[in-house]
Amino acid sequence: MSHSLRFLSYFSTNPLKSSALSRRKLRPAAVPQLRSELSFAVGTHFIPHPEKVDTGGEDAFFVSSHNGGVLGIADGVSGWAERGVNPALFSRELMANTSDLILDEEVNFDPQMLLKKAHAATSSTGSATVIVAMLEKNGILKIVNVGDCGLRIIRKGQVIFCTRPQEHYFDCPYQLSSEKAGQTYHDAMLCSVKLLEGDTIIMGSDGLFDNVFDHEIVTIISDSKDVAESAKRIADVASTHSLDVNFDSPYALEARNKGFDVPLWRKILGRKLTGGKPDDITVIVGHVLCS
Amino acid sequence: MSHSLRFLSYFSTNPLKSSALSRRKLRPAAVPQLRSELSFAVGTHFIPHPEKVDTGGEDAFFVSSHNGGVLGIADGVSGWAERGVNPALFSRELMANTSDLILDEEVNFDPQMLLKKAHAATSSTGSATVIVAMLEKNGILKIVNVGDCGLRIIRKGQVIFCTRPQEHYFDCPYQLSSEKAGQTYHDAMLCSVKLLEGDTIIMGSDGLFDNVFDHEIVTIISDSKDVAESAKRIADVASTHSLDVNFDSPYALEARNKGFDVPLWRKILGRKLTGGKPDDITVIVGHVLCS
Repeated sequence: MSHSLRFLSYFSTNPLKSSALSRRKLRPAAVPQLRSELSFAVGTHFIPHPEKVDTGGEDAFFVSSHNGGVLGIADGVSGWAERGVNPALFSRELMANTSDLILDEEVNFDPQMLLKKAHAATSSTGSATVIVAMLEKNGILKIVNVGDCGLRIIRKGQVIFCTRPQEHYFDCPYQLSSEKAGQTYHDAMLCSVKLLEGDTIIMGSDGLFDNVFDHEIVTIISDSKDVAESAKRIADVASTHSLDVNFDSPYALEARNKGFDVPLWRKILGRKLTGGKPDDITVIVGHVLCS
Repeated sequence: MSHSLRFLSYFSTNPLKSSALSRRKLRPAAVPQLRSELSFAVGTHFIPHPEKVDTGGEDAFFVSSHNGGVLGIADGVSGWAERGVNPALFSRELMANTSDLILDEEVNFDPQMLLKKAHAATSSTGSATVIVAMLEKNGILKIVNVGDCGLRIIRKGQVIFCTRPQEHYFDCPYQLSSEKAGQTYHDAMLCSVKLLEGDTIIMGSDGLFDNVFDHEIVTIISDSKDVAESAKRIADVASTHSLDVNFDSPYALEARNKGFDVPLWRKILGRKLTGGKPDDITVIVGHVLCS
């Protein structure tokens, strides 16, 4: 699925016009200024966990063309399945509510307020990590993040911005929940970044960032012909790595940093904890256009 | 050196007051609202490169109590010494100009405009990486960054935000310069993050972040009694690591990721490129207070 969310440019014309009725000296006519606006061209790709192909997985996402573009991903916490709850219900309803509330007057293009209202409107049992990014036409990208979905900004071939996962402990991320014990919009990381024409943003669930390094993402983006191809190729690499028990993935590195590893006798034999992490994989790539 | 930049709180009182002249029914008196303001308690520590102790090194920094607090670090590019130019002159003048221009009307608390004007006002020959962070009393931290100085935000024991270095190639960062070939405020990474009471920010030159891992910073901050102790202990650890040829530093990891390593015959013997990076080390720690 590839969206093109381009907006038309407009001219800010000089308000002072010559008039036969006026003999006052006019200021020299200003040169009409081109007011450029930024928006996203968006490509998306989703690959469900290999064991959840039939049910469509538990990630949910949306893309909206409102303003410069609004993008959201929620990742349903799979632990709910052990309690007989379908983990996809909460994430899907949360994303549907978020998308529906973008134009809400009270939200007023504030992503934290959007998350607050979307969470309050979600009645399903469950919980989810979530990230929402809203682009204003002046280039300000507002980001709200709870948990371990993520976002990277690539400018001139390097990652100039990245979110950091929030977690209670390894593999237990912050999450919006139907239960009081969960996090709320108060716990969100809230920031904004000035984007420039030509920047590319990559948003994903942890299924992406646990399995693909930033330098791989940068290479794929620079080698792809458009955002749709970028999103598909990044998701494919994530999927391949996630099933490769020998790949020294970001997830394996993080696990070892947190003290998890193979048993001592295997370490003595030179082995270490490796492998990707099978998971739902959602990738959204947004390329910043000027119009 | 430790600064305490606390501001007094103020009350927003109810504008509707009872008056004998008015018989109109007053709305119930609102409870006076406490409008809290955020500011930094700041600790700083600087350790020069071991070979630059006599000249005081080439980093420069400032701390201002304007608004919620303004912090800046510039790192003079040492390559200028080969051309007979003292690399400290540019970074020191740039920081002095930045500090002087904080209250400038045209700057209007916009860090990118501040950097633009401070750069334009700097007449020394040389170049420097630079980072400036400005806290508004409502908790919005505005950050402008050119090159490989850095900033981390720690909330509840985890890094929730980090800047990323910008570089042309390994060890050649983006830099503001006296020469036209250098970068300008246009090339800066510009972002803002909502801070909360209790957050801690750590700013540093690359001498810090090349030698100390984030998890070490988090541990030191949680173990220190105040920001002054945090800054000193973090700088001391950076200095120790920078001189340890066996320490597998962030700098060594990055070098190996970029393809630099020991010769093949040493690799066969199980060796790898390790060691810290001797450098000027500037550390600024800001703890967010509510008053």
